[in-house]
Amino acid sequence: MEKKVIKAGLIGFGTIGKGVVKLFKNSGSIIDAKSGVRVELKKICDLDIKTDRGVKVAPGVLTTDINDIINDPEIDIVIELMGGYRPAFDFVLRALNSGKNVVSANKAMISKYWRELRQAAQKNGVSIMCEASVGGGIPILRGLEQGLAANRIIEIRGILNGTCNYILTKMTMEKMTFDAALREAQQKGFAEADPTFDIEGYDTMHKAIIISNMSFDSRFSERDVAVQGIKGIDFTDIQYADELGYVMKLLAIASRDVDGVNIRVQPSFVPKDNMLASVNYEFNAIYVKGDAVGETLFYGRGAGEMPTASAVLSDIIHIARNMAHGYTYRKAQIAVKEAAVKVKSIGSIVSKYYLRFSVSDRAGVLAQIAGILGRYNISIESVLQKARHSVSKVPVVIMTYEANEADLRRALKKIDALATTKEKTVVYRVIN
Amino acid sequence: MEKKVIKAGLIGFGTIGKGVVKLFKNSGSIIDAKSGVRVELKKICDLDIKTDRGVKVAPGVLTTDINDIINDPEIDIVIELMGGYRPAFDFVLRALNSGKNVVSANKAMISKYWRELRQAAQKNGVSIMCEASVGGGIPILRGLEQGLAANRIIEIRGILNGTCNYILTKMTMEKMTFDAALREAQQKGFAEADPTFDIEGYDTMHKAIIISNMSFDSRFSERDVAVQGIKGIDFTDIQYADELGYVMKLLAIASRDVDGVNIRVQPSFVPKDNMLASVNYEFNAIYVKGDAVGETLFYGRGAGEMPTASAVLSDIIHIARNMAHGYTYRKAQIAVKEAAVKVKSIGSIVSKYYLRFSVSDRAGVLAQIAGILGRYNISIESVLQKARHSVSKVPVVIMTYEANEADLRRALKKIDALATTKEKTVVYRVIN
Repeated sequence: MEKKVIKAGLIGFGTIGKGVVKLFKNSGSIIDAKSGVRVELKKICDLDIKTDRGVKVAPGVLTTDINDIINDPEIDIVIELMGGYRPAFDFVLRALNSGKNVVSANKAMISKYWRELRQAAQKNGVSIMCEASVGGGIPILRGLEQGLAANRIIEIRGILNGTCNYILTKMTMEKMTFDAALREAQQKGFAEADPTFDIEGYDTMHKAIIISNMSFDSRFSERDVAVQGIKGIDFTDIQYADELGYVMKLLAIASRDVDGVNIRVQPSFVPKDNMLASVNYEFNAIYVKGDAVGETLFYGRGAGEMPTASAVLSDIIHIARNMAHGYTYRKAQIAVKEAAVKVKSIGSIVSKYYLRFSVSDRAGVLAQIAGILGRYNISIESVLQKARHSVSKVPVVIMTYEANEADLRRALKKIDALATTKEKTVVYRVIN
Repeated sequence: MEKKVIKAGLIGFGTIGKGVVKLFKNSGSIIDAKSGVRVELKKICDLDIKTDRGVKVAPGVLTTDINDIINDPEIDIVIELMGGYRPAFDFVLRALNSGKNVVSANKAMISKYWRELRQAAQKNGVSIMCEASVGGGIPILRGLEQGLAANRIIEIRGILNGTCNYILTKMTMEKMTFDAALREAQQKGFAEADPTFDIEGYDTMHKAIIISNMSFDSRFSERDVAVQGIKGIDFTDIQYADELGYVMKLLAIASRDVDGVNIRVQPSFVPKDNMLASVNYEFNAIYVKGDAVGETLFYGRGAGEMPTASAVLSDIIHIARNMAHGYTYRKAQIAVKEAAVKVKSIGSIVSKYYLRFSVSDRAGVLAQIAGILGRYNISIESVLQKARHSVSKVPVVIMTYEANEADLRRALKKIDALATTKEKTVVYRVIN
């Protein structure tokens, strides 16, 4: 099905939608040249077509009726930027089933319905792409699917949420408290009025699922991911991290070994000489370890109008170029092959740990803690005991060698139950 | 031209060739799954088919006759890993003209004959890919051509030579002299017995040309690149860089503005908080700034058997997948559109500079130097004057604000001619 002009329809005229419209206007010649065919944005659908977005749109392009896009036989590419599970999923499914290619930046939908979307796309001999759903402008999904295509992916570590990274960077570099850093992020527009979704780690979780689905050719759900956000991280631990040669980063980690895959979202201690430690403020980065390529890292802006639009357009160009060259997605030629990958529980992982105990300042307390850790096969790498902050309790910081998470949890249960333990022990995983 | 099995022929059974054969053996299932078709390595051509490479090869696969590959109608993909300008270019041209796709890791050939190779590929409706020619396993060419397809590339800064980066890292981290670091690089196999090609910057230049050709859709030659290697870099300057908050890196820089493109290879002062400053030892990284995506960085192993093989296979999978899906490269449909990009001379660039003068320890010398710099519109940001090393000469280090390179050269000509100047002034560009 070759065409002289390929027409696209956009659903969702928000920030990213605006960026996409701008790119079509300002870089149309590049888009056409790279596609090898003229690409036009024919329709834009949004419930609000009154508000001025500051970009000129030709009359008749705007509509509030989704059918003007989904039922238009001239439109070959549907760009879904409305976000959320539904009705986005229903619209995209209808688009795929009416033989249209889909480009989406919707991480919630893609992470939840990836299998259904891929199957629908293949059944209809079209394609669904979502580069913008992870890492904003960073071409990470292409990197995984194409650039590293010959690799077995062993581990992925991603800084995937600009809001959290901005807050942690502010706390680290400018010695701010969590609340102060969050307030500033909100003032600068890096955080929502209700930041729950970001700081509780759910946004990072969605992206972790998308990356894992692609990397391990499987299908993971929210239940498969152990999620810990950065909400209320204590500045004390940011300071200890610095003293010990680390920086705190919220990481999405997906690791595979012979037993299966473990996916987790966790604030982590990252060594200062690790590339991820240099990823600051609103920037994102994804570290990928493959069996052939070894260690790689992809870095860039993980959000924002133009970076995200850049990723959306890269998908549009890819599809347009394929159409222009007569690439036909053979229906169901590539079956949705999903290896049955075992999901490993968080308890099964092995890691080094940072532990901060709050204990009463009595002789023998450290010995007691060390004794319990030892009984659960947790060896101590270093101990940091500070001058007492108060008479009632003193902080004791312990860095462990690699230990099993389940063992550690059992040990901490015992330690937190001691009369000499004044507060729940603070735990962070330490990556190498 | 759909096929059940796609057959490839390999020219050049050296280190990377060995890696490619290993990947075919160990990851065949992945390669076939990603390609959507079975891919076989049918022939391997090398002058030496006696030496045991430590990988099993089926009988009849090895040959010393290039025609067994180029004249075999069954072979659809030719993998060229022999290196050098010729006869590689002649073989590849013959392969393209006999309707075969080509995958090459040959930076010398690709940098010199890109236009001819693209034209031949398009004339014959086949494709030529060379991901492995720049950045080893890092999928940077795909990133530029596909992931960032909607962007106007504004600037590229690359650490593209593992040998040089290893030497500079050793000098910086372990306070080694250039010669000691080079010797160690040679012992570890990171540098050739004759390291000229690497340390003089020619290898980096080839990669800079390839990246520039792709990024600016133009065609540059060696004459268009100002090249300065790292040979004989003085440890003194590595130390001053550290004191001033910088690290020395050999960078390939390609920058574009309204007047044109400037391409240069130069040892540069990189601020410690710049991501490129964290790229150490044999690793490579490419910083890309696009008008929509903003700043991105791609990092990984720039050389080596398996990382490079990973890149070669990613190209093979791409071609096989296209063939399996009936993608037909329309003959000359995408004309080789090469924008006539003006090449800007090195004299026209604007940069900050690090200057180390060796002058006689007399009152008024600094004033004299500052005076000359001022007359050529070069403003001083900071001055570092150390205790005298000898009675005869003292070092004076000056960091400038942004200045025009031509102005700087004129000023230094004057300064180096002064009776009080004891040695040629050392100059390095400082990036921000």
